Amino acid sequence: MTSLVGSRAGAGERMYDLATRLFPICRSITGDGVRETLGAIGEGIPLEVHEVPSGEQVLDWTVPDEWNIHDAYIATSAGERVVDFRESNLHVVGYSEPVRTELTLDELRPRLHVHPEQRDWVPYRTSYYSRTWGFCLSKRRLDELADGTYEVVVDSTLAPGSLTYGECFVRGATEHEVLLSTHVCHPSLANDNVSGIVLLAELGAALAARPRRLSYRLLFVPGTIGAISWLARNEGRIGRVCAGLVVACVGDRGVLTYKRSRRGDALVDRAGAHIVGRADGRVLDFVPWGWDERQFNSPGFDLPVGCLTRSLEGEFPEYHSSADDLDLIRPEFLSESMDAALAIVDVLENERTFRNLSPKGEPQLGRRGLYRSVGGPEPGVEQLATLWVLNQSDGTHSLLDIAERSGLPFDAIRDAAERLEDAGLLTKDG
Amino acid sequence: MTSLVGSRAGAGERMYDLATRLFPICRSITGDGVRETLGAIGEGIPLEVHEVPSGEQVLDWTVPDEWNIHDAYIATSAGERVVDFRESNLHVVGYSEPVRTELTLDELRPRLHVHPEQRDWVPYRTSYYSRTWGFCLSKRRLDELADGTYEVVVDSTLAPGSLTYGECFVRGATEHEVLLSTHVCHPSLANDNVSGIVLLAELGAALAARPRRLSYRLLFVPGTIGAISWLARNEGRIGRVCAGLVVACVGDRGVLTYKRSRRGDALVDRAGAHIVGRADGRVLDFVPWGWDERQFNSPGFDLPVGCLTRSLEGEFPEYHSSADDLDLIRPEFLSESMDAALAIVDVLENERTFRNLSPKGEPQLGRRGLYRSVGGPEPGVEQLATLWVLNQSDGTHSLLDIAERSGLPFDAIRDAAERLEDAGLLTKDG
Amino acid sequence: MTSLVGSRAGAGERMYDLATRLFPICRSITGDGVRETLGAIGEGIPLEVHEVPSGEQVLDWTVPDEWNIHDAYIATSAGERVVDFRESNLHVVGYSEPVRTELTLDELRPRLHVHPEQRDWVPYRTSYYSRTWGFCLSKRRLDELADGTYEVVVDSTLAPGSLTYGECFVRGATEHEVLLSTHVCHPSLANDNVSGIVLLAELGAALAARPRRLSYRLLFVPGTIGAISWLARNEGRIGRVCAGLVVACVGDRGVLTYKRSRRGDALVDRAGAHIVGRADGRVLDFVPWGWDERQFNSPGFDLPVGCLTRSLEGEFPEYHSSADDLDLIRPEFLSESMDAALAIVDVLENERTFRNLSPKGEPQLGRRGLYRSVGGPEPGVEQLATLWVLNQSDGTHSLLDIAERSGLPFDAIRDAAERLEDAGLLTKDG
Repeated sequence: MTSLVGSRAGAGERMYDLATRLFPICRSITGDGVRETLGAIGEGIPLEVHEVPSGEQVLDWTVPDEWNIHDAYIATSAGERVVDFRESNLHVVGYSEPVRTELTLDELRPRLHVHPEQRDWVPYRTSYYSRTWGFCLSKRRLDELADGTYEVVVDSTLAPGSLTYGECFVRGATEHEVLLSTHVCHPSLANDNVSGIVLLAELGAALAARPRRLSYRLLFVPGTIGAISWLARNEGRIGRVCAGLVVACVGDRGVLTYKRSRRGDALVDRAGAHIVGRADGRVLDFVPWGWDERQFNSPGFDLPVGCLTRSLEGEFPEYHSSADDLDLIRPEFLSESMDAALAIVDVLENERTFRNLSPKGEPQLGRRGLYRSVGGPEPGVEQLATLWVLNQSDGTHSLLDIAERSGLPFDAIRDAAERLEDAGLLTKDG
Repeated sequence: MTSLVGSRAGAGERMYDLATRLFPICRSITGDGVRETLGAIGEGIPLEVHEVPSGEQVLDWTVPDEWNIHDAYIATSAGERVVDFRESNLHVVGYSEPVRTELTLDELRPRLHVHPEQRDWVPYRTSYYSRTWGFCLSKRRLDELADGTYEVVVDSTLAPGSLTYGECFVRGATEHEVLLSTHVCHPSLANDNVSGIVLLAELGAALAARPRRLSYRLLFVPGTIGAISWLARNEGRIGRVCAGLVVACVGDRGVLTYKRSRRGDALVDRAGAHIVGRADGRVLDFVPWGWDERQFNSPGFDLPVGCLTRSLEGEFPEYHSSADDLDLIRPEFLSESMDAALAIVDVLENERTFRNLSPKGEPQLGRRGLYRSVGGPEPGVEQLATLWVLNQSDGTHSLLDIAERSGLPFDAIRDAAERLEDAGLLTKDG
Repeated sequence: MTSLVGSRAGAGERMYDLATRLFPICRSITGDGVRETLGAIGEGIPLEVHEVPSGEQVLDWTVPDEWNIHDAYIATSAGERVVDFRESNLHVVGYSEPVRTELTLDELRPRLHVHPEQRDWVPYRTSYYSRTWGFCLSKRRLDELADGTYEVVVDSTLAPGSLTYGECFVRGATEHEVLLSTHVCHPSLANDNVSGIVLLAELGAALAARPRRLSYRLLFVPGTIGAISWLARNEGRIGRVCAGLVVACVGDRGVLTYKRSRRGDALVDRAGAHIVGRADGRVLDFVPWGWDERQFNSPGFDLPVGCLTRSLEGEFPEYHSSADDLDLIRPEFLSESMDAALAIVDVLENERTFRNLSPKGEPQLGRRGLYRSVGGPEPGVEQLATLWVLNQSDGTHSLLDIAERSGLPFDAIRDAAERLEDAGLLTKDG
């Protein structure tokens, strides 16, 4: 059997370092920020970069014009920049159309967005599908602005181009695919979702380094429109997807969380619930909002794709604000999330059904060295796992079934099955 | 779609007014009190009055002789009435045979019934199927009676006649019938069951005033023998009953309660549990006692008929005593019960399954005006309902399924389906 | 119907008396101690004694040589026995091979076993399948031993012979068998398992004294190898086993406990859960360790055999030590366990499905004397049971189904069915 559990040494720090590099880039659903991000990821794993032209029909949607931005600011008549894109890319409403004008503060106010609760935080705002422009700033900064006339500049382009996404295929022994997806459309927000990007990059490298029964398809896509573009272009391949995870917001101190797929009882759901549940995490039922699990779980696809996360969208106060920065995420949380992802993958890889070859009565384990010789009062996990695997392996209970029924960890059950197979007491079924 | 939710203006007061009128009438399982009651109901809704002759075999039962009473009293030798039917019809044991005699107090005692717990309350007693006579009075009154001889008169008739019940049929677009039943056999007891009678009368009027997919059959029947008479006479029609409610004790301050049918998972059960549960009420499993749900849920009929009530039989201290008077019931409780009945009916009317016409990925709701343009941190119920209906409408989940899974109210789900159908994104299935 | 509920008068004392007689005997998985024990049991019930020769292959196991012991001690050079088998048979490790030697205390130490927690208790140890010898003693005694040379004697024989088990068949009206099994391989340990032996002996006598629909097969077998021997020799008969109980550790003050079979929902599991649950006991799911339920529930047999016990193996501190003596068990606990076993048997005997012959509406119970004439506020258990049986007896719900759904005791439901059958309202189905 193939064990994938245990992330590579230094994974937490390596992910955090990549996050530090990716954090400043100004990403959106299209544009050069996504390309630069994919370039950095491609240094670690083989990444195929796709360009989907503006105007292409993708399912019910149309790929929008490409947006790029070079500079943006609000300056006083004295030339002092009081709101400056160069300071933080959150200062500009995403997809702001170009503007170059002078306005009084009162004229400007409807274009200025502040955080509803925190005076010092800059909110994150976008307007992808209705053309407008605007700025985001802290309430404190806004209150400091004197009346008068301001120079207002958004030096952006919004024109036919393309939407960019990255795809990494890690081939396994079979064509059954595990879909792993994360969104790459957010600018300088660390948990949402630089964290998901770096976890997927590390996971891709880890998968490539190990023997695999399954194939893995990693998607780095702009939210919603990117996932929809991939689905539109890959409808013929979707039948191969046997499991999947959307990965997002995996670096903060929030509790490890698995959100089930629409099906609710797919293998990935049982694996996710088993692994995250045993790690004292949360297991949530599917709801049709969140990240790109919305698209993969739409009724026309209904893919067995769950979601691995920590804090949910909107669940942490720093969500979609300048406070979602590199201090919010930690190597140890990234690492714990990574371990959970690998443990889920390990269940997917090793789940199968065995048959007890000595099913009448218990076989005599002692003469095969499978029974502790010195008996203490409590049999250990190894011993219990052996008895459970023997008792349940009648061809109708898989290893995960046995783990769930026994309350023992999947890897203990998998190891017991391996020992019993080696002893000639168990055989793979079917 | 048809919305039946929301009772007519002033329903609570209108029901209470009718209760005030019906309360003094001396009803029993047969006799003129029932006829007078049905006459009053018939002023508001078209009521067909049925007479079932004494001696008619109805299922395992026989319709008894008709009982009518004109006067009854216990008087001192000085002619003072110490127990007087004219004061309260509860003073006479229901179905008391005629008597005119003189008895000493000691001879009389075995015929006198007092409340087991409350000194000042007159209990309600009947003896339908074994001939006897008796009086009910408060313990206080009994203790005041001096020894001596009393004149004892029950001026009743107990002779072949008929059992009377009322039936109101409100035809809808289809022949599928909703059976709504209440018992009319109790004399001056307000909650049990003048409250049920007035609610059903108001409900009949409300249903008649609205468009209807389903037909409704309202029964005003004497308890047990009346329901059995209707069942005996309508066996051929019973296959049309797709749902039903027995309504009783719906005017007191007890918590709103839905009791499931024997089937437990009929549509009416799911509707009742959804509506009453969301109103912070109780949902109880079926038990084979209570009111006429006993008969409708007998195994030979097994109709999907639940029960809408507040306090159960025997659950409120005033039950079957003179304290169950017009002070025990309130217009606002009648009104809340009425709203629940209408909301259950609304689920029955509108429950159906739709199919998402754009099932691959989410359709772009923004360009159809179905997505909030100004985003707050929390999507509202309307938005969530839209996403749930789209996600679940694959032809296998009905609106009530979606309401149950999403935890959203049925009417929000129904409204979302209507909006999506208008937008061409949803179609009725099958 | 056949009522088996209620143990015979004096059962608790009778069981305790037999326990007192059996307690001192030195039993093991083979040898004369088992034969002597079976001889005593055979005085009360007809017992067939089987001998399985050493070396016989039984499923995956081989019957070991027979062990008998006559004496064993550790004595000082002055001839004083400091550890003496005659004082307690626990002092010798079970299956100790013969030895006669002199050793210093230091040489002896590796052969001496003490209780891990209690200074004054002698532990119980065995070594059936790897040849060795040893002594068990209290830590206090060990600490008192002076350095020096000791005479060490185990006067045992370990040679080809046979394994002995007892079988009592109580024939009923049908060939469907209830398997009742207990282990007889432990020496002077009262709860584990003299208690199980005496309960099964009493149960056998009780069953023989009553009318029976089912047949009963009682097994008094050495743990593991005895059960495996019986299974190996009776494979052709196993299809007749419709239910079963392993009985062990039933005399201590621990809470009454039913452990489900591997199937989990067999009739015996539902009966056990109903009876033990109503007695405020514990109902546990199957786990593949414990006593001989391990063998009966191996996947190749998968018999519907649960376990009736009080404290589980290892769950009481006195487990497998000299403190598991006659003070640990009490007649009243043996008696309560016996009552539970009989009540479970009563469910097995009487479980069946009836059909209501008057299924449309309620039948008029009053004229058949099946309805209380004087009504109090709360119908009694008898009344409720009658209504439940009538309501549920449509041919799909058994008496145990009705007991479970109604929350009423099985015997009340059974009695109601009997009354209704006598009244011509109910008939046995199929």
